[in-house]
Parts: sequence; C-alpha cells; structure tokens
Amino acid sequence: LRLALIGYGNAGRAFARLVKRKRGEFPFLIVGIHTARHGTAYDAAGIPLDPVFGPAAKSIDEFLDRAESDAVVEITTLNPATGEPAISHIRAAFARRRHVITANKGPIAHAYSDLAEEAQGAGVQFRFESTVMDGVPVFNMVRNNLPGVKILGFAGALNSTSKVVIAAMREGKSMQHGINAARRLGITEADSSYDIDGWDSAAKSAALANVFLDARITPLSVDRRGIGRLTTERVRELARSRKTVCLVSRAHVGPAGIKVRVRAEVLDDTDPLAAFTGTSNLLVIHTDLMGSIAAAGIDCGVEQTAYGLFSDAVDIARGSAILRP
Amino acid sequence: LRLALIGYGNAGRAFARLVKRKRGEFPFLIVGIHTARHGTAYDAAGIPLDPVFGPAAKSIDEFLDRAESDAVVEITTLNPATGEPAISHIRAAFARRRHVITANKGPIAHAYSDLAEEAQGAGVQFRFESTVMDGVPVFNMVRNNLPGVKILGFAGALNSTSKVVIAAMREGKSMQHGINAARRLGITEADSSYDIDGWDSAAKSAALANVFLDARITPLSVDRRGIGRLTTERVRELARSRKTVCLVSRAHVGPAGIKVRVRAEVLDDTDPLAAFTGTSNLLVIHTDLMGSIAAAGIDCGVEQTAYGLFSDAVDIARGSAILRP
Repeated sequence: LRLALIGYGNAGRAFARLVKRKRGEFPFLIVGIHTARHGTAYDAAGIPLDPVFGPAAKSIDEFLDRAESDAVVEITTLNPATGEPAISHIRAAFARRRHVITANKGPIAHAYSDLAEEAQGAGVQFRFESTVMDGVPVFNMVRNNLPGVKILGFAGALNSTSKVVIAAMREGKSMQHGINAARRLGITEADSSYDIDGWDSAAKSAALANVFLDARITPLSVDRRGIGRLTTERVRELARSRKTVCLVSRAHVGPAGIKVRVRAEVLDDTDPLAAFTGTSNLLVIHTDLMGSIAAAGIDCGVEQTAYGLFSDAVDIARGSAILRP
Repeated sequence: LRLALIGYGNAGRAFARLVKRKRGEFPFLIVGIHTARHGTAYDAAGIPLDPVFGPAAKSIDEFLDRAESDAVVEITTLNPATGEPAISHIRAAFARRRHVITANKGPIAHAYSDLAEEAQGAGVQFRFESTVMDGVPVFNMVRNNLPGVKILGFAGALNSTSKVVIAAMREGKSMQHGINAARRLGITEADSSYDIDGWDSAAKSAALANVFLDARITPLSVDRRGIGRLTTERVRELARSRKTVCLVSRAHVGPAGIKVRVRAEVLDDTDPLAAFTGTSNLLVIHTDLMGSIAAAGIDCGVEQTAYGLFSDAVDIARGSAILRP
C-alpha cells in the first residue's frame, strides 16, 4: 500500500516510525509527504524517517498528482470551526480515486455523510479510527465486530483537558492551574477554551453521531455546555459527598429524532464514566442486540493515534486484497 | 450457513430467536438440535423455535452425521473441571470438517492450542466470543481490529457473583446473603464455590491467556485465591477508606514466562476495575503498539451471549464467502 501523507507533525512521525517497524509484516510504503512549513518530499521507493524536504508543492492537487499513492493520510492541523482544510484535502484524494485515512475529527464532525458517499462513488475506502478515541478501536469495533447491530445511542467521557482540570480543582487548585497542567501534558492548545467550553467534546459527539446514528449534524448543532463556570468550591463540596463533575457526551435516538448533547454532569465517584481519568477515556455504546458495551483507552497519546492510522491502513489493504485477512 | 446445535438451554433458545429475527439479512438456518434431556430434532429446511424433538441421537457422531451443517454450535452445560464433554463434541465436528462456535469456556481454558491446530488442519474456523465476556467483542477486537499488535498481558474483573456478594457485604450483609442474591439473579450455580473460590475467574483467565498469550495452560495452573475468607467487617472497614475488594484476573509475559493469577485485590473505589459492578465486566489488555485498551459489557446476560454466538456465525460466514464483508 503506497501512502501519501498530508501533514507531518508528531502523529505523522510516529506513524512513519510504525510503518518502518512493521514493514516485514505489512508492505506499506510512504511515497510522499507534504507539509506547509517544511516543504514537500517525494520518493517512489520510500521516504526515510527524516525526510529531505524540497520546495513545497504549490497545491494539494499538485502534491497528489506527483505522489502516486493508493491511499492519502490526512493529518494536518485541525480548524475545528469548519473542518477545513482537511475536508478539501480529502475531496482532492477521492477525486483521484485514492483511499483516505484521517486523524482529523473535523471532516467527520462536519461532513461525514457527504464524504462517505463521495468515497463510495469513487470506489475507495474512508477510514478515521484515530479521530475520537486516539486510535482505540471504536469505529472498527462497530464495523467489524457488531454485524447486524443497530446503535441506539452513546455516552462518553472523551475530553482529557477537562479531566485534568477537574482533578486539579478537587485538590483545591484553580481552574487556571488545571489548564496549565493540561498544557504541560501537551493535551490542550494555547486557546484552552476549545476544551473548556466543550467544543472538543461537541466535535467528537458530532463525529460519533454522524457515523453511528447517521445524524448528519455539525458540532454547532450539539446542545453544548462546558465547565467554564465551575468553581473549585463546588468541586470540593461534591468530592466530600463522593461525587465528581465530568464533561459527558451523550446521544440517543428518540421519538423526536436524534439528541446530542455535551454537559458537565455530576456523577458518583464510582461511575464508570468518572473512572477513566487524565488522558484515559471511555465510550459506552447502547445497542439493540448487544445491550450496552464500552471501549476504553488508558493513558492514550500520540503513539496510539499513530497506531489508529496504521490499523486503518491495514483495513484498507485487506479490503483491496493487498493483504489477506 | 447451516447450523447444528448441541445443547438447547437459555442461550441456545435466545440464539435461535436471533437467527430467526435476522434471517432477512443473514441467511442462517438451524438444521439440527441435539439435547440430552429433550431428544434430537432434524430438519434440513429449518427447525422452528419450539422444536418437536424426536428420540435422542445415540451419540454426537450420529447427530452430526445426520444433521448436515456447515457449522456446529456447542452450548452444552459445562464441566469446568475438565472441559468435557464439550471438547469431544468439538473434535467430532472438526473430524467432519465443520466450523465450530462455542460459548463454553472449558474447551478454551483446557485445550485451546490443540483445538486451534485441529481446526486449522481441518480447514475450518473455531470461534468462541461468548466464552469470557458474555459476547462483548474481545477476541474479535484483537483478531479484527488490532493487526500487528502483540499482547503483553491483561487485567480483568470478570466474575459477576463475587461482585454481587461484595456489594452485599458493603451493605453489612453476610457472604451467604450475597450468594443468595446472586442465585436469585441466575448468575451462580447451586454450588457457588465455583465462583467464590475463583474457579470461574481462573477458567476465564486461562482462556484469555491461551488465546492472547499462547500460554497453553489450564485453570489448574492459574495461581488462584478466591474471596471465601473475606469478612463483612473487613469489607466495611475498606469501604470507609473508599476502597473495595475485587476478584481480579491478571496475566503478564515476564522474563520468567507467563504469569496468570486470580486474587481478591484491594482497589480504590474509583479504580476502573471496580467501576463495573454486578453483571457488568471489564477487561484491560496491555499491548506493545496500542498501549492499554479495555472492553466492557454492561449488565450482560443471555441475550448478549446469544449475540456473541451470532457474531461468530457471521464471522465464519464471511470467511467462507457465504457473506461478503
């Protein structure tokens, strides 16, 4: 499977290391890497881990035309408000009948149903395991392991920054102190409001609802409240009665349609949704035939995101008969 | 996919209902049902949900010869000390080049590697998703969704009876009171020592270690201690310091080989292993490439066990090109 990478940050480099490490078992080759900052590299025989970048391709079209790949790995920096430029990159790949793998939740949260239809029209695969749970198999669990099952809803504690912030507040620290701690862990951006106000959770909720429930929504239509008004006093008071606050994403299909919301919920300390702290996360899926089941990732980071991309590549290779299952 | 069922208890009947409900999408047909108690039924055109049983086949060989199926579903009552008669039934199926699906953990805990080799030699599939987590996809998660990953160990809270017993003791009740509560839920047998002394957990641990770590052990070689000596006073004392007791299965691959053990561990109330109570369960898998990930089932019962059998049948049908993935 020949791969062209758009973006080459931490996840991209971890992915390239993994492709190299697993070459014997999985014959994948990175034949092109395009970055806005460092330039563009091409090599049909495979690009080394420390690429020598030449001048940047003038456009994604130019890059994809020159880097002849079977699949495109879209891992640019996200603009969460629009899903761009990732959505345009993905469309450029589909136009050339390339499979697409992305770790960007923007395209799934903003335009999943359109993109899935375009992939089908082009006769290619579209994979995105790393977008919501850092590579923990949730989309693949449903696709591969739950045949015939209908998903009725879900509940997830999916935002790491809010977990770190609330843990700091339980210890009597300020919200800002918690935000600084999350920043030191590398899990929140300069503008932490994306996490604190629930936008990250809303984007993940929209992505899950679009894929699992065919909701055809964007993060803007998620009923969203963040943890911005939470006080240390309130968190301490709840802790004394063995309760905690958790930013929870919930969706369900009801008589009035699909409801998707993000809330700072008060939970018992012993609630499963509260038990996965820090950079761990839990997603519970409610189904018709299999009751409620859950998947969790523990202390996830960039290595897991890279593995999610890799597992998507394997899935595509199997589907293309490049690998036998 | 034509199916022959050995055993027709609660799980078997739930499975038959599911096969009927999903006929439009998945063309499965139950062509034979053999029970020791009610007799044997055959119908190449499909057996109804309330079978009319004729005289019992004199042997499993006779049953399998007469019920011409592609796959055999082994769901007899378990003898946990030996894995028999399920192991012999499975071998009789392999001898006829039939795929096998079982919800019996005995064969996996006692003889997995031999049976897997025999299946391979016969050119058939061997599936057992419902044996450990009531149908929650753990074996299929590893097989289908974690390509190239090596499993390094696991930790699970997999025994429901002990959870119900310890919950009762936290409320000040006796162990016997808890056992009675578990019996009313239908999750423990007349002889509750199988659960209380950790044999159920040891069998599940051995099954997981055999499949995931190629351990080639039996439940007898699991380092096992149950909860039999636990007192209500001790559980209450721990609860006051926000701790609880949990019967935990753990395995890891170390320099000295594979260690598998079952222990009543003292955990924080907020530990993920403690968070899945009653008939819910959690399995954490430690891997080389994907860190630690977990799967959980919430309030699992016979419907989930039946779905696990069904998902195995779909997996086999896909592999046999009866269904396209």
